[in-house]
Amino acid sequence: MDRFSLYRSLARPADTRVLYFIADGIGGLPRGPGGKTELEMATTPTFDRLANEGSTGLVTPVAPGIAPGSGPAHLALFGFDPLQTRVGRGVLAALGVDFDLKPGDIAARINFCTLDNDGKVTDRRAGRIGSELGALLAESLDGIDLGFGIDCIVRHVKEYRACVVFRGEGLEGNVTDTDPQDTGVEPLAPKALDPVADTTAALASEFVVKAGELLSDEKVANGVLLRGFDKYVPLPSFAELYGVKPAAVAAYPMYRGVARAVGMTVFASEDTIESCVGLTQTAMEGHDFIFVHFKSTDSRGEDGDFDGKAEQIELADQTLAELLELNFDVVMVTGDHSTPATYRAHSWHPVPVLIRGPHCRANARQDGFGETSCITGALGSLRSMDVLPLVLAHAGRLGKYGA
Amino acid sequence: MDRFSLYRSLARPADTRVLYFIADGIGGLPRGPGGKTELEMATTPTFDRLANEGSTGLVTPVAPGIAPGSGPAHLALFGFDPLQTRVGRGVLAALGVDFDLKPGDIAARINFCTLDNDGKVTDRRAGRIGSELGALLAESLDGIDLGFGIDCIVRHVKEYRACVVFRGEGLEGNVTDTDPQDTGVEPLAPKALDPVADTTAALASEFVVKAGELLSDEKVANGVLLRGFDKYVPLPSFAELYGVKPAAVAAYPMYRGVARAVGMTVFASEDTIESCVGLTQTAMEGHDFIFVHFKSTDSRGEDGDFDGKAEQIELADQTLAELLELNFDVVMVTGDHSTPATYRAHSWHPVPVLIRGPHCRANARQDGFGETSCITGALGSLRSMDVLPLVLAHAGRLGKYGA
Repeated sequence: MDRFSLYRSLARPADTRVLYFIADGIGGLPRGPGGKTELEMATTPTFDRLANEGSTGLVTPVAPGIAPGSGPAHLALFGFDPLQTRVGRGVLAALGVDFDLKPGDIAARINFCTLDNDGKVTDRRAGRIGSELGALLAESLDGIDLGFGIDCIVRHVKEYRACVVFRGEGLEGNVTDTDPQDTGVEPLAPKALDPVADTTAALASEFVVKAGELLSDEKVANGVLLRGFDKYVPLPSFAELYGVKPAAVAAYPMYRGVARAVGMTVFASEDTIESCVGLTQTAMEGHDFIFVHFKSTDSRGEDGDFDGKAEQIELADQTLAELLELNFDVVMVTGDHSTPATYRAHSWHPVPVLIRGPHCRANARQDGFGETSCITGALGSLRSMDVLPLVLAHAGRLGKYGA
Repeated sequence: MDRFSLYRSLARPADTRVLYFIADGIGGLPRGPGGKTELEMATTPTFDRLANEGSTGLVTPVAPGIAPGSGPAHLALFGFDPLQTRVGRGVLAALGVDFDLKPGDIAARINFCTLDNDGKVTDRRAGRIGSELGALLAESLDGIDLGFGIDCIVRHVKEYRACVVFRGEGLEGNVTDTDPQDTGVEPLAPKALDPVADTTAALASEFVVKAGELLSDEKVANGVLLRGFDKYVPLPSFAELYGVKPAAVAAYPMYRGVARAVGMTVFASEDTIESCVGLTQTAMEGHDFIFVHFKSTDSRGEDGDFDGKAEQIELADQTLAELLELNFDVVMVTGDHSTPATYRAHSWHPVPVLIRGPHCRANARQDGFGETSCITGALGSLRSMDVLPLVLAHAGRLGKYGA
């Protein structure tokens, strides 16, 4: 029996409310052997109390040694096996800006970039142009005629980022990036990795040329780099799989995209505690499973800012304290992956997790929420994809398997 | 996505050097409830220091309750799922003596044995004849004409052990052993477990008869017992899967065989610290991933010699101390399986593992390297096949999965 069939067959209704709090990249590393991590240095009275009252553990996002991107890391926490279910960055970008993708659409991420007179990339982010100019440029590329009877739709995402959608019959998404991930070289030609994707590769080439013509008067943002081509294939919906009414509260498009990919209702928050808590309260009016995404823990980790990350963890703790006043029956806290400040990137290290609700076992020791304390937590070592079923069980939403 | 595709797609180059130190059968059991194991009794300052500075855990070679042979146990530590990838003992024996197996070859292990006048086995190891006589006998059996247009090649392995290879078109390996694993009975007739292996079974029967004729003047080694028939199908190579330049340093043919099976360059050491360290230094000139095999921990366990095994563990610790002077970026220590002296055989118990390198989390307690301390190690409980990806991650050799 596969995971989806298992959950569908066991899901049962209950009058319980779940808070699914994901602090992006919360897991970390000590500065040196035997030292404390960012989370262990931070003052986190709310995390610590929930950990001591509930059960903790450590979750591996994809597999040991594998550092995940945000897409697979979130899909895993939504109960999907991230090695079986894959959604490309282009699709997540389009879903993240509320674009109404249709099955079969091909989507890719756009970076506006700067090209010199020889056509070589001098800035992969076009001087990090602001959202105002970015939106104008995206609008200027919307609706380009590429032939083949295909619609070409462009939407702005944020700052220098946008996305393009090719809509038509028989397109496939298996096409390589044009972004060379380097400067001083020309953009790459898009290549079909499978003959069925030849048309998409041709459309991508044509789009790059015509976009370049339309942007030729721009001094800074005079070209586009494409990556993350993918075909939109709707996933099983969260509501249908698990029998909950799910909503997402997230400030960043990427995370709204992955929530929309599984059919959650999405609330776009500002990047403040007030906005996050206010929208969560609004979301609770029609929903009983609220995924709240907290971003800045990851950002500071990527910056290599150990103390800054610890501060953002404290802010996450304060955010959670306010969210708890909204009265949830089950609260889950974890990260999608670790982003140690000493590593400056997503890493493979397991992520602390806690579940606070009815029916929790005690951890071996009551010493708060941290990478070390979670080693001896009651939940043990888990894959991220197993967190959701545990939370549903605590919420009384999973029936018995077999007679 | 399967394991091989995943690793291939994520492998990336790095200028780092890995020591992969496998102390055969290192895991053990206490003499009585609550007591210390062989590893915990031994004085192992180097293992203990690395464990305290790095991260530890416990690895299950195949699956809970399953005691593995050396072949699957090593394949698992090389990143292969030992339930999916199987290599027969015959193939490992032939590879272990540097024989140039070709895809489609059938290989089996030979024991020279003693038969009485009724054709019954009186000694399965022919009085443990030495390597000098064993080599002569093996040579006398090389090139027997078995018909069917098949080449029959015999190579000596060690003492009373040899191997036979059948080379020709359309052979399959699914044939039963002739070794009855007992004395006072006749050798078994080889049987095809699948009709496609009928020819191989017929060749094996003919080989046993003709070998018996050629050995009839011998008093002690006057017969052969065959086991571990297998067809050689090359595995994905370690270098191609993981993007490293791998070498193996091992004193025993079996372990050189399993290293050759995954395409490692093999250095045959003497069974001394000096030879092991010297050859490791030589291997490092052209390789960046060195698997070092330490055998005697397993041998003493099989003998039921608790104190002797603890002594050999101390020798392994001293060997590692010398190897560390060669400057590796990441060091991994574990065993392929447990061989508790009280059990006198390979067992199913998880094996202590440690990884020392950059980006290590602290264990819950800093109390050295042992079966008990590893329970609360930062790596938790793992399958053996997940050790290699973790080591590659610490060595900066695995990229991010998904966007």
